[in-house]
Amino acid sequence: MKYCDTRQTATNFSSVYSTDLLPTEGSEEASRHFLQEIVNILLAYMCKLFKRSTKVLDFHHPHQLKEGLEGFTLELSDQPENLEQLLVDCRDTLKYGVKTGHPRFFNQLSSGLDIIGLAGEWLTSTANTNMFTYEISPVFILMEEVVLRKMMDMLGWSNEEGDGIFCPGGTVSNLYSVLLARYHFFPEVKSRGMSAIPRLAMFTSSHSHYSIQKSAAVLGIGTENVLLVKCDERGKMIPGELESSIASAKDRGLYPFYVSATAGTTVYGAFDPLNDIADICERHGLWMHVDAAWGGGLLMSKRHRVKLQGIDRSSSVTWNPHKMMGVPLQCATLLVRKKVSLNFECNQLCAEYLFQPDKHYDTSYDTGDKTIQCGRHVDVFKLWLMWKAKGMEGFESQINKCLENAEYLFDKLKNRTDFLLVFESKPEHSNVCFWYLPHSLRNLPPGCERDKKLHAVAPKIKAKMMEEGLTMIGYQPLGNKVNFFRCVFSNSATQREDVDFLLDEIVRLGHDL
Amino acid sequence: MKYCDTRQTATNFSSVYSTDLLPTEGSEEASRHFLQEIVNILLAYMCKLFKRSTKVLDFHHPHQLKEGLEGFTLELSDQPENLEQLLVDCRDTLKYGVKTGHPRFFNQLSSGLDIIGLAGEWLTSTANTNMFTYEISPVFILMEEVVLRKMMDMLGWSNEEGDGIFCPGGTVSNLYSVLLARYHFFPEVKSRGMSAIPRLAMFTSSHSHYSIQKSAAVLGIGTENVLLVKCDERGKMIPGELESSIASAKDRGLYPFYVSATAGTTVYGAFDPLNDIADICERHGLWMHVDAAWGGGLLMSKRHRVKLQGIDRSSSVTWNPHKMMGVPLQCATLLVRKKVSLNFECNQLCAEYLFQPDKHYDTSYDTGDKTIQCGRHVDVFKLWLMWKAKGMEGFESQINKCLENAEYLFDKLKNRTDFLLVFESKPEHSNVCFWYLPHSLRNLPPGCERDKKLHAVAPKIKAKMMEEGLTMIGYQPLGNKVNFFRCVFSNSATQREDVDFLLDEIVRLGHDL
Repeated sequence: MKYCDTRQTATNFSSVYSTDLLPTEGSEEASRHFLQEIVNILLAYMCKLFKRSTKVLDFHHPHQLKEGLEGFTLELSDQPENLEQLLVDCRDTLKYGVKTGHPRFFNQLSSGLDIIGLAGEWLTSTANTNMFTYEISPVFILMEEVVLRKMMDMLGWSNEEGDGIFCPGGTVSNLYSVLLARYHFFPEVKSRGMSAIPRLAMFTSSHSHYSIQKSAAVLGIGTENVLLVKCDERGKMIPGELESSIASAKDRGLYPFYVSATAGTTVYGAFDPLNDIADICERHGLWMHVDAAWGGGLLMSKRHRVKLQGIDRSSSVTWNPHKMMGVPLQCATLLVRKKVSLNFECNQLCAEYLFQPDKHYDTSYDTGDKTIQCGRHVDVFKLWLMWKAKGMEGFESQINKCLENAEYLFDKLKNRTDFLLVFESKPEHSNVCFWYLPHSLRNLPPGCERDKKLHAVAPKIKAKMMEEGLTMIGYQPLGNKVNFFRCVFSNSATQREDVDFLLDEIVRLGHDL
Repeated sequence: MKYCDTRQTATNFSSVYSTDLLPTEGSEEASRHFLQEIVNILLAYMCKLFKRSTKVLDFHHPHQLKEGLEGFTLELSDQPENLEQLLVDCRDTLKYGVKTGHPRFFNQLSSGLDIIGLAGEWLTSTANTNMFTYEISPVFILMEEVVLRKMMDMLGWSNEEGDGIFCPGGTVSNLYSVLLARYHFFPEVKSRGMSAIPRLAMFTSSHSHYSIQKSAAVLGIGTENVLLVKCDERGKMIPGELESSIASAKDRGLYPFYVSATAGTTVYGAFDPLNDIADICERHGLWMHVDAAWGGGLLMSKRHRVKLQGIDRSSSVTWNPHKMMGVPLQCATLLVRKKVSLNFECNQLCAEYLFQPDKHYDTSYDTGDKTIQCGRHVDVFKLWLMWKAKGMEGFESQINKCLENAEYLFDKLKNRTDFLLVFESKPEHSNVCFWYLPHSLRNLPPGCERDKKLHAVAPKIKAKMMEEGLTMIGYQPLGNKVNFFRCVFSNSATQREDVDFLLDEIVRLGHDL
């Protein structure tokens, strides 16, 4: 069958140009043919991606890629290129990229390549429309409502009450939450600005994502008014510390209004104690946001959702299906417990060229005016399609498997003397954090001298790892912990043998350091 | 050839499920086969899209779509659906959507369906990576640099000086410009917030896009501190009015810091006099932003770029290739004249889990820390591929053609008594604004009574138009002008016959009102 053909294109496009494609008259055949060749390239890439014999990446430094490799040049000329050249460029683009769907890519919270999600993205780009009005996106606007409703059900929010929106990434979702909270307490800020209201204070844990601070910078609250609450050694916010942080902010004349708890921190995968934090927020009348960008997926698992207990008491939630649920990038949401009024009024400006009140349909579906974006990419369809294909149970087994991989890795590391866990307790999410101890460090006592040497180990191994390209894992320091590896599992293609491979590879590359 | 087959799928997927696809062992064939069926659906849609005999839309009210039409249900269940059902759902999703690429879709600034751009999007979603670091997006990060450099060349900015970023839409680009300007004058705002700095004033024309006000609301500046400068009857900002607006803001104790001029307003397609505005900004030491989201494309045309004279003097520019250049959604940029220092420092927070300083490559390519987004969708590849395929000359002829269509429409309307132009002068961009006068209004003298009736005409025609689904055009009121139609051309598939069709259709639907 034609579609199984993974050889290089047989037909020659070297005298065919973009002007020979649609909408040019009589170009239907050529257009189909060209897109089919593109698809052949993509299908071949996809099949290769899942093979363990394929490298994760073929690393080159920026200057090497810029100079042009084996005829692959990034430079643009004024004259058109023929379509044969374009097909070659497409192959090269994939060749020099990083295979984030590879079973041995552990580098990021988003990984894998879901075939159904991919189909959804291909359709989305073919439909090429925009989320601002029902007028031009009737189906996608309604799908957004259906999917967000499902997600709110998972949060335990009763019907009719909530609202939400798909955002370009979790950072923007978090920014929305601060924006909504500020508007909730001080609606006059929209027209009069920050000079009309008290100096605000926000709270989040020292392990939280940096987007909370970024939001404070953007919104004019100021990063120094984000108070970082201490965590326990496991990376969970300490409720007592939040209490005293709120008290001291008040003493300093600040107006506390917002707490962002984290469900699944970026590095440790820790879950803040949501019920304790909700108690404090209720007591002080604060907006409680939960950044569950990473941890939200666990709500799909009957086994693991207990870790998010208390999330139903939050005012808003960030949840990125493009992370733990394996949806292709980008797919992030903000969910708000109180009904639309908030969301709409906070951002609405009623541009008449889009949101005419005298339309002939129910204009409450013109959701564009809720957003701070105006035009908005359609991010819902791929998730809707995956949900149809997998059902809750499909997501659940995918997620359970990722967490089983993490436990498998944790159990292995516990019993090794050449690896050291960053914290001893069993992972709550799929993050496992550890140091590798090369032979030369194994007999040094813990302390400054060892730390200094240990700090250089992960970067050295990572550099070699990228040069060789067989696997990828991230590292970072955190607080007083020197550089350590963070392994995360979100790819359903990953098996135990890949976990074994990762450890063997670290040992191989780092043994003699 | 298989790929030309537009019939319904022959193979039956009714007992195949998503778990039978990759990464499941032995599922390569089924995965390819399934994606090929998806592609067949998309290719059939694409070919139909460009046919004038195809309807632009098949309108249904929200409640109708929600109730489920001919078996198409949006609801999600807990159990998985089989892949046959998914293929049906994909067909239905396209069927009940709006064909924004249709030659008779005039409703939005973004329209058309570029085959090369579409190929670029399909590849982008297959690569499924993220723009935050060179580590995981080496090729796309470098392409971003190349494309932005090209765009800055078009602006007339000398080499080495500028910087830029792809954003999720022009509204976010405009928000960045305000953020950068604020940081430029008051870097302490990032940490200390708005309470540490004077009350700011921003300026933009009364015809500008609402995103400037939205930015002020978000950033804590306040919408009432955005001063809307009067325009001439053509929709261009009056420089003298800007001068006096700045003076009066100063008198009121505000601190003027930012002007957003518009190159191609949303409704009229007007170009503000950039050189005059630049003179004023220089005199007062203000940040000059140009919102060229819509008009930027004209820089690709030797004939039309003169309309943006003075843009080289701006501090920042918004330019959306997804509008006039026909790139699939979403593709928007912000360009900044002064070098990265600004951009980086303004938003940088140095999250160590992503932006480790001890990486083995040149980490200035880890551009994620410039943004307020963290994770960022890859929006550059489709534009890069289109640029390769078309060259400057290809974009130029596309854009010239759109403006010729606008002139053709303008010339037709000028000579008709049943249509009335909103302003008499020749269009500068591809926007043409007009009223249709039904028979019953044609003998009424201009004035309140006629206006009241005229205001209801466009919505009535639009409602009928959507019910019948043969074409789509937008309408809105503006200032003291009652509802009028705005026709815009950005689809290279549109021909003169389509313009003729639009007018005939308006007459047919509105004649008896």
